[in-house]
Amino acid sequence: MVSADPRIKSVFDDIRSTRNSDFVNNFWRALANQPALLERTWSSVKEVMIAPGKHDPLTKELIYIAVSTANACSYCVQSHTAAARAKGLSDQQHAEFLAIIGMAAETNALATALQIPIDPEFEVG
Amino acid sequence: MVSADPRIKSVFDDIRSTRNSDFVNNFWRALANQPALLERTWSSVKEVMIAPGKHDPLTKELIYIAVSTANACSYCVQSHTAAARAKGLSDQQHAEFLAIIGMAAETNALATALQIPIDPEFEVG
Amino acid sequence: MVSADPRIKSVFDDIRSTRNSDFVNNFWRALANQPALLERTWSSVKEVMIAPGKHDPLTKELIYIAVSTANACSYCVQSHTAAARAKGLSDQQHAEFLAIIGMAAETNALATALQIPIDPEFEVG
Amino acid sequence: MVSADPRIKSVFDDIRSTRNSDFVNNFWRALANQPALLERTWSSVKEVMIAPGKHDPLTKELIYIAVSTANACSYCVQSHTAAARAKGLSDQQHAEFLAIIGMAAETNALATALQIPIDPEFEVG
Amino acid sequence: MVSADPRIKSVFDDIRSTRNSDFVNNFWRALANQPALLERTWSSVKEVMIAPGKHDPLTKELIYIAVSTANACSYCVQSHTAAARAKGLSDQQHAEFLAIIGMAAETNALATALQIPIDPEFEVG
Amino acid sequence: MVSADPRIKSVFDDIRSTRNSDFVNNFWRALANQPALLERTWSSVKEVMIAPGKHDPLTKELIYIAVSTANACSYCVQSHTAAARAKGLSDQQHAEFLAIIGMAAETNALATALQIPIDPEFEVG
Repeated sequence: MVSADPRIKSVFDDIRSTRNSDFVNNFWRALANQPALLERTWSSVKEVMIAPGKHDPLTKELIYIAVSTANACSYCVQSHTAAARAKGLSDQQHAEFLAIIGMAAETNALATALQIPIDPEFEVG
Repeated sequence: MVSADPRIKSVFDDIRSTRNSDFVNNFWRALANQPALLERTWSSVKEVMIAPGKHDPLTKELIYIAVSTANACSYCVQSHTAAARAKGLSDQQHAEFLAIIGMAAETNALATALQIPIDPEFEVG
Repeated sequence: MVSADPRIKSVFDDIRSTRNSDFVNNFWRALANQPALLERTWSSVKEVMIAPGKHDPLTKELIYIAVSTANACSYCVQSHTAAARAKGLSDQQHAEFLAIIGMAAETNALATALQIPIDPEFEVG
Repeated sequence: MVSADPRIKSVFDDIRSTRNSDFVNNFWRALANQPALLERTWSSVKEVMIAPGKHDPLTKELIYIAVSTANACSYCVQSHTAAARAKGLSDQQHAEFLAIIGMAAETNALATALQIPIDPEFEVG
Repeated sequence: MVSADPRIKSVFDDIRSTRNSDFVNNFWRALANQPALLERTWSSVKEVMIAPGKHDPLTKELIYIAVSTANACSYCVQSHTAAARAKGLSDQQHAEFLAIIGMAAETNALATALQIPIDPEFEVG
Repeated sequence: MVSADPRIKSVFDDIRSTRNSDFVNNFWRALANQPALLERTWSSVKEVMIAPGKHDPLTKELIYIAVSTANACSYCVQSHTAAARAKGLSDQQHAEFLAIIGMAAETNALATALQIPIDPEFEVG
């Protein structure tokens, strides 16, 4: 039986104590069949999204949602929009965020369709 | 001749004065064959990316780059990474940004491959 | 009436006999409105996915699911994960597969965001 | 100076000894500005792609390339096609791989455009 | 209360009179929380998709659906396929459209996987 | 030696006579290592893109470019934009096409980020 793997209980316990909540969402439950992947993924999420860093928690969520939208990941968009709301995302901030990702997608299409060469001023290195 | 359209000069002049720089990058030059599109796109960019809003200018750039990376738009990634640098993006902030978009892409793949159902707690409405 | 086209019955019969099963899944039923496309698509699927080749049937399914995940095709991910299971995909193999596609998506994002130039050692030709 | 971070030398040394080669490709060099990300990414790549597992090394490369193609990551496609060649990918195996990813992309488009509902037979859980 | 914003009523009224129908679909209702974005998006849609131009209305819908399929946007695919049907898309035209987007997706995968260099004959400029 | 496969000469001859031109572009040359794939792909392209059908040749090209842009396939965008120009695409038609794909990409992002439920009026079946 899968749930017998002690890594599952250990990760779930850490999720609960880190978030200070009994709720463990489906993403982590779905990974319970893959204990090594569950452990590594949670460890990365803790380090990247939860540990204090150079970007505030709400900004991290918006960056995450931007990628998830472009990748059309319904679960990711919904779960992290809920997380962003919980971290204080206001209606106006959400509206501006939507305008930015819409404009990015639009100009991505234009730049790709026109195969615009990069300006020497912008080149790396 | 395309450049005869007065909308082109008008938009280019506005780009220069808004940015306080003589430099007009290739994206806008490439749109000069499409004056109506040039005008509408610049007007949107000004409103969404440049006008003061609820997100600071650097955050807007990071959201924009996140979308552009997922859409594999080389021009957009390079030009807006340069813009983010000009707005003060530090090496450490860039490193954390990269970690976030990498993790988002990874967990997008996991959630999609597992077709994880959304938790009722996260559903909109 | 659509089902009157003899190509539909012919393809459905071939699907049933090739798979040795009466079940015809929704993908093929949805193409019944497009007999020419149905015929060409089934013919390609038979040649590429079913005929013996240089990759074993399970590997073919995993490659197929990898693409479908990146393209966010829910139907394709679900139907071919079921097919891979039927071909013997174990929990451990699935877990490792998920780790690979997650890592690929993550490093894709990093390489694109950093616009890493290709090493001369890797260039084709 | 970035290269002074001891984690960089440590990871580069490990890359060289793991691969038994002096060559460190641009992907890792590009991450040298992000030592924490470099360390975590290399550690994951070693665990997922290099450590012995349930899929053979060539199959892992093909799964990786399948994702990278769908994500349009030029660097990833080129570097891992070179890696697959080094692991013995033959012309015929490559040809069949291309046929599979082409067919996957094609049927992804059809299934998404037709919004085909999943068959109850394929549903998870 | 959001619906008090006069821009919402104004846009909804314009949608109704432009389309000569009382029906306002969910896309516009979902944007009602973002009146500025609602206004700008509707204004663009009117200009790009509805105003007479160089492409006929059905062709515009097909181009729109092609992009939406590649971006895996379920809502967009369904709503605009309905719109295309309303504009006269026949079964045969739909079948040929599906064949084109399937083939485009397939050859996109081949060209990207092979990193085919562009022929000088096709280069812009 | 690869080029000894008679299918290659046969397909190249057919490309030349079908197009009434000596020029064979890199896409087909790159597939010469995969004669079966070359043959099947050319046969599909002839049937889907070249044979007379329900959409005119220029519309087919635009649909093809729309998909290729969303999939970020540089080779495909460039080669088929050249083909569209050869079939008479005017600057104004190109400008309107760009506006449509830009708007599609933008509204795709909005609909996905908001996870807008499909209106019953639009549902298939």
